[in-house]
Amino acid sequence: MVNVGIIGYGTVGSGVFEVLNTNSKSIAVKAGEEIKVKRICDLRDFPGDAAEKLITHDFNDILNDDEITIVVETMGGTKPAYDFVKASIEAGKSVCTSNKELVAKFGAGLIKLAEKHNVNFLFEASVGGGIPIIRPLNYALTAEEILEIKGILNGTTNFILTKMNDEGLDYETVLKEAQDMGYAEKNPTADVEGFDTCRKIAILTSLAYGKQVDFEDIRTEGITKITKEDMEYAKALNASIKLIGESKKENGTVYARVAPALIDREQPLYSVHDVFNAIFVKGNMVDDVMFYGRGAGKLPTASAVVADVIDAAKHKNKHIPIIWEEDKLELGDIREYKQKFFVRVPADMKEAVKQKMPELEEVKTEKVKGEFAFITPVLTENEFEEAVKDLKIINRIIVNFK
Amino acid sequence: MVNVGIIGYGTVGSGVFEVLNTNSKSIAVKAGEEIKVKRICDLRDFPGDAAEKLITHDFNDILNDDEITIVVETMGGTKPAYDFVKASIEAGKSVCTSNKELVAKFGAGLIKLAEKHNVNFLFEASVGGGIPIIRPLNYALTAEEILEIKGILNGTTNFILTKMNDEGLDYETVLKEAQDMGYAEKNPTADVEGFDTCRKIAILTSLAYGKQVDFEDIRTEGITKITKEDMEYAKALNASIKLIGESKKENGTVYARVAPALIDREQPLYSVHDVFNAIFVKGNMVDDVMFYGRGAGKLPTASAVVADVIDAAKHKNKHIPIIWEEDKLELGDIREYKQKFFVRVPADMKEAVKQKMPELEEVKTEKVKGEFAFITPVLTENEFEEAVKDLKIINRIIVNFK
Repeated sequence: MVNVGIIGYGTVGSGVFEVLNTNSKSIAVKAGEEIKVKRICDLRDFPGDAAEKLITHDFNDILNDDEITIVVETMGGTKPAYDFVKASIEAGKSVCTSNKELVAKFGAGLIKLAEKHNVNFLFEASVGGGIPIIRPLNYALTAEEILEIKGILNGTTNFILTKMNDEGLDYETVLKEAQDMGYAEKNPTADVEGFDTCRKIAILTSLAYGKQVDFEDIRTEGITKITKEDMEYAKALNASIKLIGESKKENGTVYARVAPALIDREQPLYSVHDVFNAIFVKGNMVDDVMFYGRGAGKLPTASAVVADVIDAAKHKNKHIPIIWEEDKLELGDIREYKQKFFVRVPADMKEAVKQKMPELEEVKTEKVKGEFAFITPVLTENEFEEAVKDLKIINRIIVNFK
Repeated sequence: MVNVGIIGYGTVGSGVFEVLNTNSKSIAVKAGEEIKVKRICDLRDFPGDAAEKLITHDFNDILNDDEITIVVETMGGTKPAYDFVKASIEAGKSVCTSNKELVAKFGAGLIKLAEKHNVNFLFEASVGGGIPIIRPLNYALTAEEILEIKGILNGTTNFILTKMNDEGLDYETVLKEAQDMGYAEKNPTADVEGFDTCRKIAILTSLAYGKQVDFEDIRTEGITKITKEDMEYAKALNASIKLIGESKKENGTVYARVAPALIDREQPLYSVHDVFNAIFVKGNMVDDVMFYGRGAGKLPTASAVVADVIDAAKHKNKHIPIIWEEDKLELGDIREYKQKFFVRVPADMKEAVKQKMPELEEVKTEKVKGEFAFITPVLTENEFEEAVKDLKIINRIIVNFK
């Protein structure tokens, strides 16, 4: 029998309790023994809840209980989560977490600490919710040199963009609808400004290259400037607009960014709709692989946490190595990275633009009037800004075609 | 230093040699030590090949070499592959294989043998080529009860169906083209009749439920009867026709089959084109996940074999448990499984059909004349055959909509 303590009985934490109960038999077969939640730490009480009697308000009831060998951290944030996780590892307990802020910021150090104490620090649920992606990157794509990771990593923004595309609505209207439906928070900043995606691509890039990628170094742009007119142009291009977290290795330099991008129909990411997430990985041998599924939600995320709990149960007193050093990976300057841009300008600037950029490709749609839209040649951002410096730009979006 | 012996220097075997050489540095980091191919057994010689000097015609040169601790089996077939693999395991060597015939037929027994000898028998490359699917099933989706697996598991047939769909060509024309391009074998039976897909879904179903699923028990239908007219109707339905290997658990019974099916645009499998494969898995907690990538090809398949080699190198004298018992899983009678059918009959039978099946939904396309096409209500195969027994059926395809 393995005893688990859960810190944080919110959506994911209560999901972990539910998954462990619902699938207890098959989980026992896979772990080799029964796994039971012994204690749950949360500041609130949960009268009438199935877990009511397991609740404690004092983390020490978990920390000092030697029968609890695995701690599930599902509080979110770094304070006090970091202190609780650190103390748990130092007390010889394995920790499984869904907390992307914690992992992005302290992942490398906590792995090292877990190694020192011969326990495990596992975080499958921190990226992609229920989609297995951390494990495939660490243990399946091991024969690869990773060339590129490109992900739709946030369900809220993908839901908003899908609805804008399908129903021709503008951003504000759809955001409000998403908030009413509970798909977006009242304060949606972390999602719509791309901060959530940024932490996730930081984690994936750290694992792909084995070094610390600081999320603060990743240039991050959200979806708030995307309009229904942009969506019409995307359709005319047989493309869709997705919030993409990506990193790419070119000539030995790793570039990373978060930004909305035009994705063409030739790519499997094109048809990832609604709250679904997907992570596309390119390796130098396997070429393209993609992992798809529910990137959020109570039970999918909890399922990934429980997979970690099962792994921790199977690896008692055996640290599972994860290659992620604390040394910082210096990212390339994203302003020097080359790509095409989709650009909209007022119609009367058509000739001026054509003179500046004779190789541009015009983009036409009958649904938008009074504008001239085009795709630039391949340019760095510096080159792009130089080229358009005297023009009035209505909007510009990165072109991420195959 | 870990020494590897390869049996079978064909497409995948030579790919393994190439992957281990090309990515040797990063592989050494992930395995914790250098991995080198010491010997390759093949009946042919390879003058001028980089591996020329490693070639032996005698398997005993690998078997009796105590320095070789990992054997890669990439011969295919079960004779003599089974004897070579068994002898290798009994000699205390781990075996990594891409051989689906071997795994489908002898997987359970070889896992047990490997456990007894405290070595590993690993087979990530046997299903889905470069797509990580065996490892996610065994180690990532462990918190799940698997409700359904649905895969496009054969690149050749998917290439043919995609081309028929995109170019409006008939089966024979596209098959010939695929053969000329090297995407289909001269004798294409194993692919086009669904036998390859059958072995792969047998392996996945065995792993999902932990018991032996005999591929001979899985009713298998290929793509040879699919016509360009079927493709036109599929388009009219916003669907595509895919060769699907699937298994499904309903009321405690597992059903499995291989057959072409209409897949609607709401499913991610719909947009899996050309030689790409994808495996969709539904769990009772995580809901839908999908794994996508190159299901065949030298380097993608070799990459999966090498991931196994790295795992074997990291687990010396430690058997990695895989739950797949030799007890047979009795499958449900597929004739009792309920679904809708898409059916085409001559136009003059329209009234007769409507009388027999008032709830049918008509399917119309301007591209096909002289026919009446429809989708039946939900029926078992027995019910379907009873209902259409006096009708002249032009074709019928399973409807696999979301």
